[in-house]
Amino acid sequence: MTAYTATVTVRLKHGVLDPEAETTKQALDRLGFELSALRSADRYEIDLEADGADEAEARADEMAERLLANPTIHDYEVSVVEAAAAQ
Amino acid sequence: MTAYTATVTVRLKHGVLDPEAETTKQALDRLGFELSALRSADRYEIDLEADGADEAEARADEMAERLLANPTIHDYEVSVVEAAAAQ
Repeated sequence: MTAYTATVTVRLKHGVLDPEAETTKQALDRLGFELSALRSADRYEIDLEADGADEAEARADEMAERLLANPTIHDYEVSVVEAAAAQ
Repeated sequence: MTAYTATVTVRLKHGVLDPEAETTKQALDRLGFELSALRSADRYEIDLEADGADEAEARADEMAERLLANPTIHDYEVSVVEAAAAQ
């Protein structure tokens, strides 16, 4: 078993309203920053033991499907690195 | 001016309690997943126009300093790609 860190990034699907991001963008505008858009996303870093990167990715993918993302409104992506490389 | 997408990842500093992540980890445990740790982070993807990647990164860095991160409890990192490459 090897230690891996899986990163799951959960984003709102295109077209789903994101009032938190809109408020953050307006606050940056008021502070004088120039930006054309801002999107927010949640990121989960999961430490797990697995026999290989493929298995770690499959398990993180299932965690996203079952709990971390809501398939109605979210897209997600999973990436995996060996834990030593993630430090 | 070129269009860039700056990604700001805001994490809690080591040692700061993260009850949301703890609750998420417990829910995954209850679903039968095996994991040794889970950390959550906020990710902001900012579209902006700048004369170069260095300028885009400097501005995103300042946005993180001023608004997106709380230096008392957060660490953050900034990465920048040209917008076409980010699609």
